[in-house]
Amino acid sequence: MPASMTPAQLRQSIRRGEHRGNTSGFAPGHVQCNIVILPAAVAGDFLRFCQANPKPCPLIASSDTPGDAALPLLGDIDIRTDLPGYRIFREGKLSEERQDIVELWRDDLVTFALGCSFSFEEALLADGLEVRNITEQVNVPMYRTNIDCRSAGPFAGKMVVSMRPFRAADAIRAVQICTRFPSVHGAPVHLGDPALIGIDAIGKPDFGDPVSIAADELPVFWACGVTPQVALERAALPFAITHSPGCMLVTDLRNSQLAML
Amino acid sequence: MPASMTPAQLRQSIRRGEHRGNTSGFAPGHVQCNIVILPAAVAGDFLRFCQANPKPCPLIASSDTPGDAALPLLGDIDIRTDLPGYRIFREGKLSEERQDIVELWRDDLVTFALGCSFSFEEALLADGLEVRNITEQVNVPMYRTNIDCRSAGPFAGKMVVSMRPFRAADAIRAVQICTRFPSVHGAPVHLGDPALIGIDAIGKPDFGDPVSIAADELPVFWACGVTPQVALERAALPFAITHSPGCMLVTDLRNSQLAML
Repeated sequence: MPASMTPAQLRQSIRRGEHRGNTSGFAPGHVQCNIVILPAAVAGDFLRFCQANPKPCPLIASSDTPGDAALPLLGDIDIRTDLPGYRIFREGKLSEERQDIVELWRDDLVTFALGCSFSFEEALLADGLEVRNITEQVNVPMYRTNIDCRSAGPFAGKMVVSMRPFRAADAIRAVQICTRFPSVHGAPVHLGDPALIGIDAIGKPDFGDPVSIAADELPVFWACGVTPQVALERAALPFAITHSPGCMLVTDLRNSQLAML
Repeated sequence: MPASMTPAQLRQSIRRGEHRGNTSGFAPGHVQCNIVILPAAVAGDFLRFCQANPKPCPLIASSDTPGDAALPLLGDIDIRTDLPGYRIFREGKLSEERQDIVELWRDDLVTFALGCSFSFEEALLADGLEVRNITEQVNVPMYRTNIDCRSAGPFAGKMVVSMRPFRAADAIRAVQICTRFPSVHGAPVHLGDPALIGIDAIGKPDFGDPVSIAADELPVFWACGVTPQVALERAALPFAITHSPGCMLVTDLRNSQLAML
């Protein structure tokens, strides 16, 4: 049963090209990360962007030195081969998707691993809450907002949020649970009226799929890891690499190790 | 300046009959308590009621033995004289108000001190949030809800809630702040649509005064210390005593000492 593989076994399987596609549901209990890989020339600016916008860009680890493909804090990792899918951006545009980036690797590349919502969704489920996008087996709905990120060098833009509907008491509980996990987006940034953060059509997400919202539920909005991807495209860098959507870095860290308390 | 008196000095002033009326704003930083005084015959049931309903009835201290007017955990207290006002209930009805209960004291009376919203309001203000009832200098609006308390002996009834409006991001912050203070009602129990908890007219509170709510604000509801008072009246006990509204027991405990973290 693939879901019972350890993170290291799963990465080996990915490295050998045996595991393809989505990592969601694999190695349960372990932290999965969004990945951004940039030339060293803009890496400092991106680091400052993350530090200035920790809710959408919660930085968990980065390369020790440019050109180093390891991330020892997160496990025995070769970032050139350990994701099931990569997106290559050239001049700010998606140029191609690859299953490894061995041939594209350069000695000036710096890797950033950012927290992802899988970790807090697991904590919500473990507390008995229902996560609608999981129940309905779709991608979480994500929306562009009117909330400005703080800019750093070429990196700027509006915050993207993900949405999960809850009844009020569960929304309050979700705030409590997610507050414990600042490195995977932390507490929600908004709840209630979507128009107040510039979302006009809750049924038409900008990314992902719509989910149903019952009459007695509030939409609850979390800062989303698509935010740095949007900032990255907007920066129109000559060269950048990210994970393909859903093809995350599976780490040896346990979700519980990210808990602040 | 009276507000600069220590809790002990304030209680001495109350004991001598010099300080009359509301304790709000006095001895800032210190815990003020709702008081319920009952015959020992029903004290066990009331204790179980508090334990079963900790959000509206957060018990901070109770008498060591029946007839003992001291509450050493909370300071050098004589509960017969240290509140500015008392309400005497006979057969479940308000019978009279007094400035002390020395002549009514009995050797079977048990005192319960319950947390009050002053403590968390102070924590909200200290974090830079605006507390509307304080800004508008009125009593907080309170509402009967359709939320059942768990019953214990003669004690039962619906939860009463207090309401403070906030914009969503501040409501989320208020959840975080109040979660640290479970012994003063803790996190809100509801936010958003009042009708979902049986409140039909947000502008017409059942107790206290209405406050303004801006178009971009959500009403946020906390379990309220009026809940045990309503349960007490409903129980129609032959004899019971409470503080008069706003005339709280001022204790030596600091609000920060109640913080869970």
